[in-house]
Amino acid sequence: MAKITRIGSSERWADVVIHANVARWVEVASDPQADCEGQLKQIFHQIEETLQQIGSSRNDLLQVTVYLASLTDVAILNLLWDAWVPRGHAPVRACVQACLQGNYQAEFMITAATG
Amino acid sequence: MAKITRIGSSERWADVVIHANVARWVEVASDPQADCEGQLKQIFHQIEETLQQIGSSRNDLLQVTVYLASLTDVAILNLLWDAWVPRGHAPVRACVQACLQGNYQAEFMITAATG
Amino acid sequence: MAKITRIGSSERWADVVIHANVARWVEVASDPQADCEGQLKQIFHQIEETLQQIGSSRNDLLQVTVYLASLTDVAILNLLWDAWVPRGHAPVRACVQACLQGNYQAEFMITAATG
Repeated sequence: MAKITRIGSSERWADVVIHANVARWVEVASDPQADCEGQLKQIFHQIEETLQQIGSSRNDLLQVTVYLASLTDVAILNLLWDAWVPRGHAPVRACVQACLQGNYQAEFMITAATG
Repeated sequence: MAKITRIGSSERWADVVIHANVARWVEVASDPQADCEGQLKQIFHQIEETLQQIGSSRNDLLQVTVYLASLTDVAILNLLWDAWVPRGHAPVRACVQACLQGNYQAEFMITAATG
Repeated sequence: MAKITRIGSSERWADVVIHANVARWVEVASDPQADCEGQLKQIFHQIEETLQQIGSSRNDLLQVTVYLASLTDVAILNLLWDAWVPRGHAPVRACVQACLQGNYQAEFMITAATG
């Protein structure tokens, strides 16, 4: 069986799981008291940190699913997203509205290639 | 690192991302002015086109997640789906209701095997 | 093309699809007349059965997406989840609220490694 690498395992979840050169993880803002724009900026920063941690980069994103607490925030998502995604290396993206826990305004599920 | 192939890259997303013999993509109807049945027919047709483009077929679908703007459309989804999915080669499928952008009535996330 | 193994294929979906050492499947409670706690217990039991069927175990879970009909049930989800997930081998987990079909209170999408 291909090796499974788990980073940041708590009793509830792992921060990242890597298997067969694919990393999967979920990001919500570390500080959910921020508004949606603030939370999205945190999430992009956190994804960046995770990518560095696993030896990957923004160029290696395969798929991102974005759950937004309110679709009225799609405009700000797209503004930040377009500036963040590397030209020519964009992942596939789904984006739907879903009620999220606590004050979370956005929850991302990320799949990325790893070496 | 395994090669990543991106098809139809815009500044926001790729139409399809292929990595380690797995293709991932998202489909919404090209013409969202159609009703849900019309949008679903478009989506099935578009998936077909994408499968051909990547050298795969309906037999290679691994997983489909269906977001419906209204679960009242599950009946028409199932009717079209059952006629479309090849007997003996059905993917796994999740289907939940979620508010979608604009007039989209359905958004599909697809995972398929590729050669 | 890597072999695709489908278990429990109906005309609508497969119970499990395995490809390139990754198994994907969806679980809802066999008896949706139970309340959310009852449905969650069924789902954990059913996942267990599926893992055994494919020669994997709870230690091999990669990613779980939980759709809850009501986020008021997150507390009971976490209680059951924390007791069920093997320490040091937790998957990544996303959890959002989404309207589900019929009386389903929870729908799980699971990705697991297989030998």
